[in-house]
Amino acid sequence: MDQLLRDYVEKLKSDDLLLPAWYEDGKIVMLDQLKLPKEEYIELGDMEGVAKAIKDMVIRGSGAIALAGIYGIIIATFTSKGDADEIRKAGEYLKATRPTAVNMHKTVDMLCQDMDGFSKDELVQEMQKRSIQIMEKQLDVERRIGKAGADLIKDGETILTICHAGGVAGFGFGGRTLSVFRTAMAQGKNIKVISCETRPYFQGARITAWELKKLGIPVTLITDNMVGAIAQKGMFDRVITGSDRLAVNGDTANKIGTYMISLVAKAHGIPFHISTSKYNIDLNAKSGKDIEIEMRDSSEVTMINGKRIAAEGVEALYPGFDITPNENITAIITENGALEGPFVEKLTKLANEA
Amino acid sequence: MDQLLRDYVEKLKSDDLLLPAWYEDGKIVMLDQLKLPKEEYIELGDMEGVAKAIKDMVIRGSGAIALAGIYGIIIATFTSKGDADEIRKAGEYLKATRPTAVNMHKTVDMLCQDMDGFSKDELVQEMQKRSIQIMEKQLDVERRIGKAGADLIKDGETILTICHAGGVAGFGFGGRTLSVFRTAMAQGKNIKVISCETRPYFQGARITAWELKKLGIPVTLITDNMVGAIAQKGMFDRVITGSDRLAVNGDTANKIGTYMISLVAKAHGIPFHISTSKYNIDLNAKSGKDIEIEMRDSSEVTMINGKRIAAEGVEALYPGFDITPNENITAIITENGALEGPFVEKLTKLANEA
Repeated sequence: MDQLLRDYVEKLKSDDLLLPAWYEDGKIVMLDQLKLPKEEYIELGDMEGVAKAIKDMVIRGSGAIALAGIYGIIIATFTSKGDADEIRKAGEYLKATRPTAVNMHKTVDMLCQDMDGFSKDELVQEMQKRSIQIMEKQLDVERRIGKAGADLIKDGETILTICHAGGVAGFGFGGRTLSVFRTAMAQGKNIKVISCETRPYFQGARITAWELKKLGIPVTLITDNMVGAIAQKGMFDRVITGSDRLAVNGDTANKIGTYMISLVAKAHGIPFHISTSKYNIDLNAKSGKDIEIEMRDSSEVTMINGKRIAAEGVEALYPGFDITPNENITAIITENGALEGPFVEKLTKLANEA
Repeated sequence: MDQLLRDYVEKLKSDDLLLPAWYEDGKIVMLDQLKLPKEEYIELGDMEGVAKAIKDMVIRGSGAIALAGIYGIIIATFTSKGDADEIRKAGEYLKATRPTAVNMHKTVDMLCQDMDGFSKDELVQEMQKRSIQIMEKQLDVERRIGKAGADLIKDGETILTICHAGGVAGFGFGGRTLSVFRTAMAQGKNIKVISCETRPYFQGARITAWELKKLGIPVTLITDNMVGAIAQKGMFDRVITGSDRLAVNGDTANKIGTYMISLVAKAHGIPFHISTSKYNIDLNAKSGKDIEIEMRDSSEVTMINGKRIAAEGVEALYPGFDITPNENITAIITENGALEGPFVEKLTKLANEA
């Protein structure tokens, strides 16, 4: 029943990807991202288990969450033996776990459309085909981003990055940034990466540094406030970060701290890139002013590992991201190549592609 | 025997200072700064105990370490009942605890010079007088810095700071920065302070936020990478930080992260100040290029509270401070007022004052 998917996963594994989740013997195996940099995997035998993992942030990153959505539908397909109603119900259940995960919602809807007119057996095959098609498409986007970014990098360069926009946040080739680094390596270039730890949640320390080390790419960790000091010492040649969301003029919302890095890069004449895809462009945002900055629970600033670092009663702020203005961005790396400013026409065209 | 010092400490306490250490009934009471923001005090009954506290960083900050040196000499004076040789030996012992603590070395040497020609009883009185004189002089410097800085601040301003250059790192009025904030408050100005947490050692979260809260000055904590985002939102009006060391041209070595804050301030037209004193000026450094940046043990970047945040084997960097170039500094706050650039003549004159 599951041969198509079995063969596909076999192929993915032989490609040496960094998969956040995959199908194996009637179960979904998923990297527990909450435990990183400790590498632990959990096994999920039903759709409800996959939904809970999404809800609990065991899997994170918009691409990886969409992938979890696919596997949730797959498991529902297998356990219901191809019952279209059950699969549709699973789709609604999965979508409800993360009401704002747009990519996952779109992906689930794409899988669950037009399921009538198949026999149950046919639907089991059809759902596997659809899933594989989506995964292939997304991996292709990641590979094209990787190529576009890697082509900018010269042999011997050191690249600075912040947060995590890498393999296990995407479909497994390397998301928006790791894809660039691994492709540059595959091109035979000697590169080094400096990973900013990314307070308050330490994604750079916990996840990005772990991924780079796992792929054998030399990585050095710094705290976010060291970027200026090491720029003064000429210790990096280029900045490449991911993005949460781009306005059509190129203003970019990304993890808090990105804007300050862009100021350092500008002051020192260092090229600064956002690595992203059409899926991250918000056609409703004309500029960064149209992107509202989410204020998060500030206890992540005052507590670390459950221990207070500030006196009881000290208040804190936690804006989740900041806006890097387009004039600080040398080029935007996309699946359609590296785009230089002015960005409006180029990004609008890209976002409108099928 | 200890009446002079008893009376003086009584007066200090009535002035509502934030003392890192004081004399009480034959003992030195010392705030354990390793435990902050938990407020715990230890009692030290002999010179060796004071020396150990200095060595173990229970007391920190160049001013506070000098104060501990004074109290080490005082305890040696009382326990030896005014034996000049014993006091001299104590001085050498104390100095050996921190070979690079220039302020403490100078202070101890000043106390221990010209001790001949006194009877033992007279020397006990003399050492108390000398100690009080030094403490008064240093508190006066802190008060003058406080006035010079506070005069720049307008009613209603929010001031951003990094690291800790405050009360318990100095002689107790407020060191280089807390002195400014408390004086502005005393002038009747409504101010707020934003404290950067100051990775990797969290001095801003652990110490500065605690001190401000203790003095009733409104404080908000942020991570160091949020400065850009809150500048974009217009959330602070002025930056005031301390300094490790100033070159005579005004280039300033201060806690890692200070330089990036100066870039943000410059980009947003926000006044940026270093609050310092003649004791921090290095006449041997013509510019920031003459100040070597100390590389520290990088395990403070990869571990927090003894727990790894990065995968085993991930390397890290830890430059202890960075250099803010003089052109990014609006004015330097000193005991002789706020100085605007060009700084060479003004700082050279200040450093050469008695």
